[in-house]
Amino acid sequence: MALGYWRAGRAQDTAEFELFFRRCPFGGSFALAAGLRDCLRFLRAFRLRDTDVQFLASVLPPDTEPAFFAHLRALDCSGVTVRALREGSPVFPGVPLLQVSGPLLVVQLLETPLLCLVSYASLVATNAARLRLIAGPKRRLLEMGLRRAQGPDGGLTASTYSYLGGFDSSSNVLAGQLRGVPVAGTLAHSFVTSFSGTEVPPDPMLAPATGEGPPLDLATRVEVWLKRVCAHLGLGVQEPHPGERMAFVAYALAFPRVFQGLLDSYCVQRSGLPNFLAVALALGELGYQAVGVRLDSGDLLQQAREVRRVLQTTAAQFQVPWLETVSIAVSNNIDEEELARLAQEGSEVDVIGIGTSLVTCPQQPSLGCVYKLVAVGGQPRMKLTEDADKQTLPGSKTAFRLLASDGSLLLDLLQLAEEPPPQAGRELRVWPRGAKESMTLRPAHVEPLLQLWVQQGQLCEPLPSLAESRAFAQQSLSRLSPAHMWLKSPEMCQVALSEQLQALVERLRAQGLQRVSQELGS
Amino acid sequence: MALGYWRAGRAQDTAEFELFFRRCPFGGSFALAAGLRDCLRFLRAFRLRDTDVQFLASVLPPDTEPAFFAHLRALDCSGVTVRALREGSPVFPGVPLLQVSGPLLVVQLLETPLLCLVSYASLVATNAARLRLIAGPKRRLLEMGLRRAQGPDGGLTASTYSYLGGFDSSSNVLAGQLRGVPVAGTLAHSFVTSFSGTEVPPDPMLAPATGEGPPLDLATRVEVWLKRVCAHLGLGVQEPHPGERMAFVAYALAFPRVFQGLLDSYCVQRSGLPNFLAVALALGELGYQAVGVRLDSGDLLQQAREVRRVLQTTAAQFQVPWLETVSIAVSNNIDEEELARLAQEGSEVDVIGIGTSLVTCPQQPSLGCVYKLVAVGGQPRMKLTEDADKQTLPGSKTAFRLLASDGSLLLDLLQLAEEPPPQAGRELRVWPRGAKESMTLRPAHVEPLLQLWVQQGQLCEPLPSLAESRAFAQQSLSRLSPAHMWLKSPEMCQVALSEQLQALVERLRAQGLQRVSQELGS
Repeated sequence: MALGYWRAGRAQDTAEFELFFRRCPFGGSFALAAGLRDCLRFLRAFRLRDTDVQFLASVLPPDTEPAFFAHLRALDCSGVTVRALREGSPVFPGVPLLQVSGPLLVVQLLETPLLCLVSYASLVATNAARLRLIAGPKRRLLEMGLRRAQGPDGGLTASTYSYLGGFDSSSNVLAGQLRGVPVAGTLAHSFVTSFSGTEVPPDPMLAPATGEGPPLDLATRVEVWLKRVCAHLGLGVQEPHPGERMAFVAYALAFPRVFQGLLDSYCVQRSGLPNFLAVALALGELGYQAVGVRLDSGDLLQQAREVRRVLQTTAAQFQVPWLETVSIAVSNNIDEEELARLAQEGSEVDVIGIGTSLVTCPQQPSLGCVYKLVAVGGQPRMKLTEDADKQTLPGSKTAFRLLASDGSLLLDLLQLAEEPPPQAGRELRVWPRGAKESMTLRPAHVEPLLQLWVQQGQLCEPLPSLAESRAFAQQSLSRLSPAHMWLKSPEMCQVALSEQLQALVERLRAQGLQRVSQELGS
Repeated sequence: MALGYWRAGRAQDTAEFELFFRRCPFGGSFALAAGLRDCLRFLRAFRLRDTDVQFLASVLPPDTEPAFFAHLRALDCSGVTVRALREGSPVFPGVPLLQVSGPLLVVQLLETPLLCLVSYASLVATNAARLRLIAGPKRRLLEMGLRRAQGPDGGLTASTYSYLGGFDSSSNVLAGQLRGVPVAGTLAHSFVTSFSGTEVPPDPMLAPATGEGPPLDLATRVEVWLKRVCAHLGLGVQEPHPGERMAFVAYALAFPRVFQGLLDSYCVQRSGLPNFLAVALALGELGYQAVGVRLDSGDLLQQAREVRRVLQTTAAQFQVPWLETVSIAVSNNIDEEELARLAQEGSEVDVIGIGTSLVTCPQQPSLGCVYKLVAVGGQPRMKLTEDADKQTLPGSKTAFRLLASDGSLLLDLLQLAEEPPPQAGRELRVWPRGAKESMTLRPAHVEPLLQLWVQQGQLCEPLPSLAESRAFAQQSLSRLSPAHMWLKSPEMCQVALSEQLQALVERLRAQGLQRVSQELGS
């Protein structure tokens, strides 16, 4: 296409594209806009190196003119302007997440990279936001999907935008290092099963938490506590697996202040839990408080209840009140439905780790964003096609969010760029998309949705930090009505066209196949 | 975990992990092993830089011993040994795609990266192989999913392993440049709609294909041909969109030898097709043969039939026989079901572009690979857990593919590393997984499945090229029976354990929670 534009003398024509989606993901009423930070990084660095151009020359027809390759070598985004929704903003079908204008050849080349950088980022942020809505504001949500992502960079994108969408932390350390996502981890079954129980730690001594007083041999104290715990629970002292216990001791020696136990490598009730309690109580003697346990198989809700009961009776038995409330973390293929069960009233689950169903979005693994030409040389362009669904909205546009006096969302309005913005408190007539009739409304507040981020290649203002965008997302979502937030069959948020935009669409549609564009120019 | 192992003095213990999956993806009977080339590249480069270690220090407890960080700084994979299935090999549940052995701390750290590099690669290669089975060997399959991938590197993985799995080419130019995947592209609707018809190409003259004879003004010749085509088709000459026609002219000027038309920007029958024919016939005058058309909306099978009919009558009318058989390419959310329809007998579709449903694997967007400890210090390890499904197969193992005399697959056999390999022609007794009884068989051929690729950090032999692995995949799949290749409810390929391995599993299971590992050592 680049060669076609260049050969037609159109490389420098001014063009405008919009990036949007046609249907909300997961059957919901919204998506969260995300990926802008990656787009801006990409635009800043966009250049074809000599080796890139050489490769292109090797796959293009051999008689391609050398001047075209010289043009490619000189390309950059210094002529590109980008308006975009803020990251974390709820966005509805047809509203542009990005508006990209500049020389036709360059902005066309940007199609695939921008779609690639926005689509999945927005999809996974939306998925995270839905999971956050289900979990409620208090439970801790941990993203742990790197191993299920499309390679390491897919994983980095997933971790970054899951956090933006409302997760608390990620097990992906690189996302912490490069993107500032809080990292949190745990131990795996392999850590537990790697111990047989015969191992001797080179330094088994642990100093008290305060630093005052003599260190104790942790493994020895654990054996003492194991007897007491088994007696309390009515278990034989040989039942809990010694390898699992030694693994817990090793973990406690490494992390005495944040000790946690993975309970289900052998048997939760007869091994994992008593071993955890023995180690936690031995640590307690030294003034350390264990942080919690994790369950990774079976009926997680039911087991969490049983584990909590044992924690409570044990805390009472040995008079260590903090033990009652250590956190119970769960994981194992948790999806929206299972999360709703785990987050139900009375659940004892505190922390929920989600990997596969967060990162791969199995309910709908692509958002279906498109990048469509809306104007060239200042003239509107429209793809008609026979699928009404795939028709585009022509012309250079602006977008506003119209709010009621209580701050709740009325609708998003798309209008032509040359129209004056709607006025707060002033009645206006709009055409809701898909409706046959217009309607009037009087917004109490009007917010412009599209912000200028890059003008002629220059960044206009710094992006908010990831944590700021995350907070903005939570705040913006709170302005949707409860009915918009239903996860199944929600009320849809309306998007409407201004009268002028509606008239332009009607005119282009009616003209159909007749010399559409010339007439527009006149 | 690394800190835990290190603190317990176990960083250098020899450990062995296996990477495998528990269920075939997409309800099929096989997966294709893939991702090994990325794993080997990763292992060769694996190092923690100072900045990495500094970041780790910032998120670990502040009193973590400095010697641990010194250990991390010195880490590499020089002690790691890898056995693996060849890329492109069909693989069944429980058979290791990778066996990784080396110092416990390092091989544990490799868990997530290796899972990340193998899981999605194998999933998308399998998806591609299934789509190839449906399409048959002759139709051309084009991967075009970059925009739906998890960021640019997700896209690179997708393009690479879609090719390995049986696709012919990719629209991802970087996959061509970095991985040698054949690239193929097309034009987008925006290219078409960016033209109004009033544009004047700076150089409208096109020389004949042979280079002999005077150049012609292509746009003028196209207008002449348009009249003839419209008369033949019974259309008004003003009906085909002039902007679309000018776009085709621009594309033809850029690519006279590989001209193709995207037909559905306005209306296939009344605009796209007559415009394409006018340009193709004008090119024909100059000795160029157009390569084909693309359809991207509506009923693709039906439209392909109609387009072929028009190509045929037009070819006959103007006596240009090659026009009959130009290729018809289709795209637009094609999944397995739609592909089967498009590939049915009598279909006129030649080229099929698949993006979303190839790259995102919506039927099952993750393979669910796991990486499990099977031995430490030469002693077998087994995760018991209460989900029988999640129990592991203990011990250092080898694997063989047993074949009948006609080369068809009998079963894959897992046995302990110390056992002698099965002999061709010799009867042996095995335990099919999940069966309650053993069985005997007499394989005509025995092939070792796991090959040594990396020994103590050194690559033992170069990997096959991507194209070689692709050919190997097609050849290996041809040894499965037709019933194994059914896409729905196929016959499953058996995996069996040797008698010794079965006995070890039974012993560890029976011992259950009783001091498993010590007794094994004795």
